[in-house]
Amino acid sequence: MCGIFGVYGHNDAAALTQLGLYSLQHRGQESAGIVAVDDGGHARISRAMGLVSEGFGDEAMKQLSGAIGVGHTRYSTAGGSAIENAQPILARVRRGHIALAHNGNLTNAVELRRELEDEGAIFVSTMDSEVIVHRIARAQGATPELRVAEALAGVEGAYCLLIVIDSTVIVARDPHGWRPLVMGKLGDGWVFASETCALDIVGATLEREVAPGEIIAVDSHGLRSGQGFASKPIHRCVFEHVYFARPDSKVFGGSVDKSRRELGRQLAIECPAPGAELVFAVPDSSNSAALGYSDQSGIPYELALIRNHYIGRTFIQPTQAGRDAKVKVKYNPVRELLEGKSVVMVDDSIVRGTTTRGLVSIVRAAGAREVHMRVSSAPIISPCYYGIDTPRREELIAATMTHDELVRHLGVDSLGYLSLDGMLSAMPTGPSGYCHACFSGRYPTAIPADPELLRAGSEAGIPAGIA
Amino acid sequence: MCGIFGVYGHNDAAALTQLGLYSLQHRGQESAGIVAVDDGGHARISRAMGLVSEGFGDEAMKQLSGAIGVGHTRYSTAGGSAIENAQPILARVRRGHIALAHNGNLTNAVELRRELEDEGAIFVSTMDSEVIVHRIARAQGATPELRVAEALAGVEGAYCLLIVIDSTVIVARDPHGWRPLVMGKLGDGWVFASETCALDIVGATLEREVAPGEIIAVDSHGLRSGQGFASKPIHRCVFEHVYFARPDSKVFGGSVDKSRRELGRQLAIECPAPGAELVFAVPDSSNSAALGYSDQSGIPYELALIRNHYIGRTFIQPTQAGRDAKVKVKYNPVRELLEGKSVVMVDDSIVRGTTTRGLVSIVRAAGAREVHMRVSSAPIISPCYYGIDTPRREELIAATMTHDELVRHLGVDSLGYLSLDGMLSAMPTGPSGYCHACFSGRYPTAIPADPELLRAGSEAGIPAGIA
Amino acid sequence: MCGIFGVYGHNDAAALTQLGLYSLQHRGQESAGIVAVDDGGHARISRAMGLVSEGFGDEAMKQLSGAIGVGHTRYSTAGGSAIENAQPILARVRRGHIALAHNGNLTNAVELRRELEDEGAIFVSTMDSEVIVHRIARAQGATPELRVAEALAGVEGAYCLLIVIDSTVIVARDPHGWRPLVMGKLGDGWVFASETCALDIVGATLEREVAPGEIIAVDSHGLRSGQGFASKPIHRCVFEHVYFARPDSKVFGGSVDKSRRELGRQLAIECPAPGAELVFAVPDSSNSAALGYSDQSGIPYELALIRNHYIGRTFIQPTQAGRDAKVKVKYNPVRELLEGKSVVMVDDSIVRGTTTRGLVSIVRAAGAREVHMRVSSAPIISPCYYGIDTPRREELIAATMTHDELVRHLGVDSLGYLSLDGMLSAMPTGPSGYCHACFSGRYPTAIPADPELLRAGSEAGIPAGIA
Amino acid sequence: MCGIFGVYGHNDAAALTQLGLYSLQHRGQESAGIVAVDDGGHARISRAMGLVSEGFGDEAMKQLSGAIGVGHTRYSTAGGSAIENAQPILARVRRGHIALAHNGNLTNAVELRRELEDEGAIFVSTMDSEVIVHRIARAQGATPELRVAEALAGVEGAYCLLIVIDSTVIVARDPHGWRPLVMGKLGDGWVFASETCALDIVGATLEREVAPGEIIAVDSHGLRSGQGFASKPIHRCVFEHVYFARPDSKVFGGSVDKSRRELGRQLAIECPAPGAELVFAVPDSSNSAALGYSDQSGIPYELALIRNHYIGRTFIQPTQAGRDAKVKVKYNPVRELLEGKSVVMVDDSIVRGTTTRGLVSIVRAAGAREVHMRVSSAPIISPCYYGIDTPRREELIAATMTHDELVRHLGVDSLGYLSLDGMLSAMPTGPSGYCHACFSGRYPTAIPADPELLRAGSEAGIPAGIA
Repeated sequence: MCGIFGVYGHNDAAALTQLGLYSLQHRGQESAGIVAVDDGGHARISRAMGLVSEGFGDEAMKQLSGAIGVGHTRYSTAGGSAIENAQPILARVRRGHIALAHNGNLTNAVELRRELEDEGAIFVSTMDSEVIVHRIARAQGATPELRVAEALAGVEGAYCLLIVIDSTVIVARDPHGWRPLVMGKLGDGWVFASETCALDIVGATLEREVAPGEIIAVDSHGLRSGQGFASKPIHRCVFEHVYFARPDSKVFGGSVDKSRRELGRQLAIECPAPGAELVFAVPDSSNSAALGYSDQSGIPYELALIRNHYIGRTFIQPTQAGRDAKVKVKYNPVRELLEGKSVVMVDDSIVRGTTTRGLVSIVRAAGAREVHMRVSSAPIISPCYYGIDTPRREELIAATMTHDELVRHLGVDSLGYLSLDGMLSAMPTGPSGYCHACFSGRYPTAIPADPELLRAGSEAGIPAGIA
Repeated sequence: MCGIFGVYGHNDAAALTQLGLYSLQHRGQESAGIVAVDDGGHARISRAMGLVSEGFGDEAMKQLSGAIGVGHTRYSTAGGSAIENAQPILARVRRGHIALAHNGNLTNAVELRRELEDEGAIFVSTMDSEVIVHRIARAQGATPELRVAEALAGVEGAYCLLIVIDSTVIVARDPHGWRPLVMGKLGDGWVFASETCALDIVGATLEREVAPGEIIAVDSHGLRSGQGFASKPIHRCVFEHVYFARPDSKVFGGSVDKSRRELGRQLAIECPAPGAELVFAVPDSSNSAALGYSDQSGIPYELALIRNHYIGRTFIQPTQAGRDAKVKVKYNPVRELLEGKSVVMVDDSIVRGTTTRGLVSIVRAAGAREVHMRVSSAPIISPCYYGIDTPRREELIAATMTHDELVRHLGVDSLGYLSLDGMLSAMPTGPSGYCHACFSGRYPTAIPADPELLRAGSEAGIPAGIA
Repeated sequence: MCGIFGVYGHNDAAALTQLGLYSLQHRGQESAGIVAVDDGGHARISRAMGLVSEGFGDEAMKQLSGAIGVGHTRYSTAGGSAIENAQPILARVRRGHIALAHNGNLTNAVELRRELEDEGAIFVSTMDSEVIVHRIARAQGATPELRVAEALAGVEGAYCLLIVIDSTVIVARDPHGWRPLVMGKLGDGWVFASETCALDIVGATLEREVAPGEIIAVDSHGLRSGQGFASKPIHRCVFEHVYFARPDSKVFGGSVDKSRRELGRQLAIECPAPGAELVFAVPDSSNSAALGYSDQSGIPYELALIRNHYIGRTFIQPTQAGRDAKVKVKYNPVRELLEGKSVVMVDDSIVRGTTTRGLVSIVRAAGAREVHMRVSSAPIISPCYYGIDTPRREELIAATMTHDELVRHLGVDSLGYLSLDGMLSAMPTGPSGYCHACFSGRYPTAIPADPELLRAGSEAGIPAGIA
Repeated sequence: MCGIFGVYGHNDAAALTQLGLYSLQHRGQESAGIVAVDDGGHARISRAMGLVSEGFGDEAMKQLSGAIGVGHTRYSTAGGSAIENAQPILARVRRGHIALAHNGNLTNAVELRRELEDEGAIFVSTMDSEVIVHRIARAQGATPELRVAEALAGVEGAYCLLIVIDSTVIVARDPHGWRPLVMGKLGDGWVFASETCALDIVGATLEREVAPGEIIAVDSHGLRSGQGFASKPIHRCVFEHVYFARPDSKVFGGSVDKSRRELGRQLAIECPAPGAELVFAVPDSSNSAALGYSDQSGIPYELALIRNHYIGRTFIQPTQAGRDAKVKVKYNPVRELLEGKSVVMVDDSIVRGTTTRGLVSIVRAAGAREVHMRVSSAPIISPCYYGIDTPRREELIAATMTHDELVRHLGVDSLGYLSLDGMLSAMPTGPSGYCHACFSGRYPTAIPADPELLRAGSEAGIPAGIA
């Protein structure tokens, strides 16, 4: 998963971009990058491994001058934690340049790459996004936006793109609309971002969502927009609302906090916990859902798990901490609340089950009498090919265990998942138009012919760099 | 403020200490250090600026072998952010060594230092703690604990100390008991920590508080304890419960989460907000109090402010973010919840007022109709000389403005502070035995003759290092 | 200027490459990189800014497994000190990869790049070397070596190339032979390097020079070699012997130490210094020439200038050191030797004159009575377009001043340059077959249409990265 | 070994000190530090592990304001490579401060330390120098210089000291004069340094040596000097001339280059090498001696070994480089010169023999027919207790092998050491007044009762820090 942010027409574009990336940091912590284009049309790039707060020194920021900026935060994926894979990509083409920041995953990247390679293209990263840059470079359209449209015809899968071609910013969202993208106004300039929280932080006013299939171009001639593709069914990612997006964002036109609240309420209806004395969240992503559960059920909401935010990305597991060390360092139970109680623990989802199991164990060790696990989404049973980094099916615990096995494995007294329908009914814009492949296994489009090749990158022979 | 942690009698003392420091990180983020003593009586030290997660590489940890460990996390104070001021202090004396980790502030440090200097002592840091090491080195008692008792006689102010003299661990707490200190059992060994959350993380069982005035010694002859001083009135720091300690800790024998819940309830009774539609916390330290306010008042609790935990200590303020940049990057309002509403914002305390003012401004910008500020403690009007790093009186906003001025300055529709009595009544062990000097100005002991000299360190001519 | 090193058929190819790069460090200190290919055909890359000794940690080296390795050390040039410009380049193409390390400069890179851009190629660095990778990727030949030959047809200028295509190492040297390249045998494997000193350090036996115009391929079928191009006149770079190569290397079939000795002797014949009492070198590159001058003239050789080797690349000029600070920190005169003496200072070349002027000043300050400057090469009057990073003509002091002006400007009592013929006659393989464009202005081939565009990189609009 | 540098009365004292330390880097590369005292009497310190060029950023230098500066470069010794052991030491005492930089070794440090410890002193480093600071702090004299004299009475061994007490600079040299110390004039100010090369670099004029036993004080009342101790026999360290000092320095009143030239000439007389065809140095410390050998013997001087100066302190031995890896990376033979020749290799001294053995092996591998080793000093057979970090006797190869064994072990055809008398006769000020204990075993004073305790530091229980 990734976060993207772009500015057109503000003198401190790079500084605003940095600010925007701060609020999109939850969408990717592996690397961050900014490209700025100055009035003379010169593009400059700064990329670094790690957090936005670590990557951009004064010196780098000073060089990134100009009124156009695009930025990217990247999540770690299997096939290549390396500076070569940081975005934006900046490439020189036909006497100009293309900068590109991409959120999503292309489902036919391998095929597109082979086509390009057969024509002699060279690739310097293992990212699917690089094929789009090549295709733009080869496109013949008269305007930048036409070239982008031409390049995207034939590209399948999920993408929100912020592109700079010379001094034109091009914004594109795939016709199915898997990933969120909004546009806002800041003075005379324009701001584009994965989530509205990034508009808020720079003080921009939300205009609207970039529509699925829309292509927007902004340059000195102003902003123009058009539908880039034949209309297709909408498949918004339900997991953005369940877990990924920030609660202070509006995603797909609806408040994330509100939908999570509703998910929690629905969960309390479908999976009550009679006799339970308190409900608490696995902080922070499940806070809203746990509140909703409490509202609906009348079981008091408590802050029974405290999260330690000082751990940092460089956490080295102390040798003595044992099996659940990372969970224990990250979460601490409030013994006073839990002791002797029957409790409901609400989490937004369970992937591999390792964290859940560790949490149940520390909640019990803190004295809880009964632990009733409630999950504000359906069981995850299938990998995502549209941009969420879920593991292979074999590692998805709900795909490989029966309900009873799960109860035993997690060590809970009861386990309740929200139903697929219940989950969709909580979505702010109604239950239709969502992709729920990871919960239902029903992929709305063809999936990659060889998913592992797509996933693995270097393992499949694609050279991955070591920075 | 600082956090201290110690282990006696566990083979991985340093690794446990590191783990303990992780959970005491909230008590100090400027520097961290560990001293370990091996079976041959050799002491080794590792100290670094910054977080625990940044400071101790594999190589350093491997060298810190032995069954005795003491660690320290330090908060940044005016007079010297420098590696020379990191703790523990490790000094060689009379064919042995003294390691010392201190939480608290000595009120007669300047006088004690002058005495020692007059006798030819040299100081290499600007820390008050260094005088204790000198006094122990000069003490003549037959046992390590007697020497510590001798050294502490005449030392005024707040201290919790973890000391290693050769292969004996000595634990001491000042007779007034300002700062918290607990002891726990881990297998055959002993663990000491500022807060119980650090016992939890290493799997130790809480034995009891170290009593005010108690001196404990542990070595190969076992554990022995005694009252080190004539009994004195107890002055536990109420601010530990209000703000400083972690909610999952038991401090001074009472649950911090519980007392904060109660502070919130009391606040709702004393300062209701009729007509308000929702209550929210300034996360995370005020979560419990806001929940309590909601409980008591019946006004729904919402997660209307989201905290961004990725900022890091190295945050560089982007130039365009303007006056409230740091607040804006750290907190984001949930517009959906706030828009058009009359809201209660609960915070645990207001010091300079800068953050509060910024928060009010972003909450209003997100559409809140009315902002009612409620503070779950009394106004802070006096500096602390016992270990909390409050600024000078001139910078304490509640000391320099009237209530009306405050309302205007903060930009709120109404402002309610908890009363001193209300605050004390919420303490788990009853209202007496607490120091509330910062709220009341009633210092329970003599304060430093020249507080600025104590505070300023290098500014007063004490050489401060640059690392 | 750059250094290149490659190994085929030795299990520790990357470690040997690192060792080889240590001895080619004088050819480039800006960045270093290694690509290794393992038995399964997977290529891995590690690149870093700075010295070889700084760039490759244990972890990185461990990952670079395999029996094939190519490495590169890069010199800082105007258009882009950035990690994006570090070599080797590693690109994925048609189901395989191309790694490339290049020493030299292409004179028609801008044209070749435009051609490729017109066909839709994208570029991610500002290096001319990237065009070769593209051309190889587009070549259609049946074997890797045929594709390289096809790619190089039409490429003008200087190049020594170490290329890995999948599991085949291809070595190529331009038909004019500007830059040196040798091959050696190490057990059953092959080693290729810019200079013989790199063969020595890994214990390889020198086989022979790679011939101008030769293309060599090594893979599991063995080594095969062929002439890649129609025969052309040889233009070996005379400056390699004068200054660039290490004295312990054999370059173009001749010993560098020997040719420098001879340059010094010839200089003594052409520009004697009657009455001078001692001769000394500007260490270390002029040591051999100064010894030769002393041999021939009978004037005693002294170590009158001492070089400080601890300065490092990160030298920050102390504020008080004044105009000649860098020279003063780097060189110290031996006052005892210089005081009251008439001295001959031998240097291999003068570029901008700044260092020379500073040296003359400190030599005089140390008491020298007369300073006779002798230069063991002809005056540098023209920029190099074949790989040496000489500045623009305007900055070449000998191109802009008369002899008398130079004497005054440098502050010397006399100044003698070696003649062009004298210089060439000192070459080990006779005076013909050398490029002396920087000394004579007679370029043996067409020079770039727009040299500044080639030079400037980012300044001319080619995006240069900031790492 | 260490280098010390001090300035009194120049507005950029710290910058000058940094410059001076650059030229004293050869005396110690482990750590570097600067203390500056401003006009208000405030002392500030900056210390860092590693080279001067790595340690002092712009920010640190800016803070080191004032007209008084003292600096130190430290050599790595057994008992503690740690920031705690970096100098200068800065201590606060009796309402003021003491800064101290020390070159030399105290022979009764352990006893003095025990005395102080018995009186309750605490030590934070493992350095003998720390005892002097304590003794000054306890001294009662009316003036700073009297207190220093009082402190030094009873201190045995080698020391050159630069001390700042408040705003007075005190300079002291032990009465035997083991280590060099000079004073110079810079404008109205004074400069003190271990070697004259450091005066040269800042543009100061050499005044004279600080005399053995002399104590100098400089402050706003001017400079005053006196003999601090009863006159004692002079024991200048002959090894400073043989190896340690820079050739461009004047040490003990004589030119180092000149004495090394003379050592080489004497070596040629005592140990001729009839039939040898060339003589070469192990660069750079033996260059002068090899030149002298060549002068005297008539055998031509060649540059047959080239030293690679890019290795850096962080050199990680590549795994494949084998036994002599470090030597091979550091030195490369010039095959063209050595092939088939009978050669004389001149080195200034042989300690453990490891480097020599490696060099002989690579010289032979480069084709030398006969290798005649000549050493421009006598065999080292005893450890130094006065400041040179020679290893224990067991590791000194000349102390444990017969001449024949040495010849075989080193792999040479012949081996010639200079005689003790020959060595002393080459000293510029005549053969008397020199300490030659390491060559003769005749210690001019009592040596430490327990040398290993002194040497080992942390191993003997003195706590050594880990930075």
